[in-house]
Amino acid sequence: MPSDVMRQVRLVEIVFPDHCNHLGTLFGGQALAWMDKAAFLVASRFARRTVVTARSDRIDFRRAVKLGEIVELVATVMRVGRSSMTVGVELFCEASPGADAQLATRGEFVMVAVDDAGQAVAIGRSVGADAQHGDDRDAAVA
Amino acid sequence: MPSDVMRQVRLVEIVFPDHCNHLGTLFGGQALAWMDKAAFLVASRFARRTVVTARSDRIDFRRAVKLGEIVELVATVMRVGRSSMTVGVELFCEASPGADAQLATRGEFVMVAVDDAGQAVAIGRSVGADAQHGDDRDAAVA
Amino acid sequence: MPSDVMRQVRLVEIVFPDHCNHLGTLFGGQALAWMDKAAFLVASRFARRTVVTARSDRIDFRRAVKLGEIVELVATVMRVGRSSMTVGVELFCEASPGADAQLATRGEFVMVAVDDAGQAVAIGRSVGADAQHGDDRDAAVA
Amino acid sequence: MPSDVMRQVRLVEIVFPDHCNHLGTLFGGQALAWMDKAAFLVASRFARRTVVTARSDRIDFRRAVKLGEIVELVATVMRVGRSSMTVGVELFCEASPGADAQLATRGEFVMVAVDDAGQAVAIGRSVGADAQHGDDRDAAVA
Amino acid sequence: MPSDVMRQVRLVEIVFPDHCNHLGTLFGGQALAWMDKAAFLVASRFARRTVVTARSDRIDFRRAVKLGEIVELVATVMRVGRSSMTVGVELFCEASPGADAQLATRGEFVMVAVDDAGQAVAIGRSVGADAQHGDDRDAAVA
Amino acid sequence: MPSDVMRQVRLVEIVFPDHCNHLGTLFGGQALAWMDKAAFLVASRFARRTVVTARSDRIDFRRAVKLGEIVELVATVMRVGRSSMTVGVELFCEASPGADAQLATRGEFVMVAVDDAGQAVAIGRSVGADAQHGDDRDAAVA
Repeated sequence: MPSDVMRQVRLVEIVFPDHCNHLGTLFGGQALAWMDKAAFLVASRFARRTVVTARSDRIDFRRAVKLGEIVELVATVMRVGRSSMTVGVELFCEASPGADAQLATRGEFVMVAVDDAGQAVAIGRSVGADAQHGDDRDAAVA
Repeated sequence: MPSDVMRQVRLVEIVFPDHCNHLGTLFGGQALAWMDKAAFLVASRFARRTVVTARSDRIDFRRAVKLGEIVELVATVMRVGRSSMTVGVELFCEASPGADAQLATRGEFVMVAVDDAGQAVAIGRSVGADAQHGDDRDAAVA
Repeated sequence: MPSDVMRQVRLVEIVFPDHCNHLGTLFGGQALAWMDKAAFLVASRFARRTVVTARSDRIDFRRAVKLGEIVELVATVMRVGRSSMTVGVELFCEASPGADAQLATRGEFVMVAVDDAGQAVAIGRSVGADAQHGDDRDAAVA
Repeated sequence: MPSDVMRQVRLVEIVFPDHCNHLGTLFGGQALAWMDKAAFLVASRFARRTVVTARSDRIDFRRAVKLGEIVELVATVMRVGRSSMTVGVELFCEASPGADAQLATRGEFVMVAVDDAGQAVAIGRSVGADAQHGDDRDAAVA
Repeated sequence: MPSDVMRQVRLVEIVFPDHCNHLGTLFGGQALAWMDKAAFLVASRFARRTVVTARSDRIDFRRAVKLGEIVELVATVMRVGRSSMTVGVELFCEASPGADAQLATRGEFVMVAVDDAGQAVAIGRSVGADAQHGDDRDAAVA
Repeated sequence: MPSDVMRQVRLVEIVFPDHCNHLGTLFGGQALAWMDKAAFLVASRFARRTVVTARSDRIDFRRAVKLGEIVELVATVMRVGRSSMTVGVELFCEASPGADAQLATRGEFVMVAVDDAGQAVAIGRSVGADAQHGDDRDAAVA
């Protein structure tokens, strides 16, 4: 896979009954778990390291996702610090197979590359000169 | 259960291998899913209605949670609007059974009570005069 | 958490489709699994040790629990032997969010504290002079 | 399948990490859930009806079951009442593939045949003249 | 268990909502997963070794399996090579509890016995003189 | 999403302990389930219909996939009949995050578009003049 592919991961999921409340609407927590999974995958590929989630930013849920809908998650590494990456994640859903995808929610996650002891480590690659951000963290977390 | 109990829910979970990355550290997304579940339960009990997640606020992960640890989630209804509730959720973990619980992360979720059609509805009870907040939403979401 | 809290654990679960038969009624085996989980958690916290289940006593199911109901489990350490604990577990359900909880079933589990080799070990704390019971076991089991 | 086959069901399961505590020993509650599943299957086949669990009797766990072991459950309809069936369930485990199976635990479950409204119904077949037992229940439960 | 029992394994499963598409029909992939599990169990018991799947042959799905049906899988070791076994797997379903079982699909899987390093090893037992087949593999796989 | 995107779906999965045998190698059946899921998703998007699996063709497993590896599935609609689609699915794995992906296995699945009654229906779009194949099926299956 070419290196520019490494900055983006797409996941597809199906909304099952266990992901929903009684009205057949996707739990917000399930959406958050899928978004974090996508962020984890793209950041660990980008950094060629295991990563941990340091922070999720405010996330608004704009549109209810229904039982049986197909959900697509698009996670993109947007900014890179010494050991951290800011990943934007969009969650699209399709009301029926092949229907136009609609943005249901969008969020940002800060992921930190860690070594085998769980300590933050330098990533050793960047997304460009403007990619550095001052929000780097020294301690890796959950 | 007395009515003041209705404002708080405690969940206990065990961190299993499928909740963890390769270093045996809990995925952030799993923590978020459990936190939302706790918020869902306390808000639906408080409102006596199904609720949906309208927003999660910025959440910092302060401490890695390890495979096999017992996690306790404490969700509390903090503020009540016309149809929305702001729920604070704390996630504690115990390094070994019975050890002192440590706060691993804390976050706030805005939950909205909905009717069977998924539309926001008034809750019809409050947490006190200072409980009203101006952040109420008109449209229920995921 | 104060020490008297250590004698009781509360779990909350949501009844999902995979927990039910075709009539939308909770499988008895799922109820038993949740009850044992609650007994495991309270006993391992109380003993500050991993515990194993040595015995479940006769359990009558008094009331059907329905799909989508919220279930609350309350597990309490009732009697303490040298290495065993007798845990009473009550399973309550709420027909709708916030409705009065009804007792669906109740049971007792004998849990045994074990060391890393899986052998029974003394607990080193009691619930009072009358807490000793003669039913202690020498061999730890599943 | 000949009718005498209908009185017995065999299930095979693999003990996965999520079924175990930290010592790699099968949770008692998972064993109980599998035993009830086997009782459910044999009783629903025998009665040609959905069944619910009315009671589990005292169950002693004789032997720890380890992570990765293959578990075989043998459930047999032992006694038949008007609407209830008493099912004996044995749980065997094999320390390695093809090794001699050892009995880890054994228990009895009372299952009740129900109609679509969840009410107990007559089964309409018996296991012989000595199969009647006086323990029949009028109300179907979980 | 007598040795001729070792050549056949029966599994029983219940079709849950998460196993189905929106029409309440079992996913083909879930059927394949159950068939492989049955092949894995019978081959590992027969060889007294962990086994891996080397190949699945063409599998036609003849009949839709519905939500809530009870599925029975019958896996039989048919041919034995030096380190490989060809396992035939039949998947039966019952439209209602106790109804006649109907064959929904049938397939063959080639399983290879492996040592702890994942390398193919000789099995050391056969199913008869005509059981040898020329299709043995040298390299064990997933 | 542009229409040519509709012919291909990419899924990413993480190999968890429950997906593996005791040697930490992915079960073949889990690989087959993921491959079928990818085929289901691309075919239902392409046909704008729910689809069912009619057939899986011979699949050889070339390379063991290990616990913790990231798996990427690429499913492509290759040929289109009146109501059926032939989908090629490749399963790649990465030994470590960001490492070169290696082809572990590849297979073909025939998927059939169905109406709400589960009957095969015409798809109403093609992949080009050479896309027709004579293998169309009249009856939709599991």
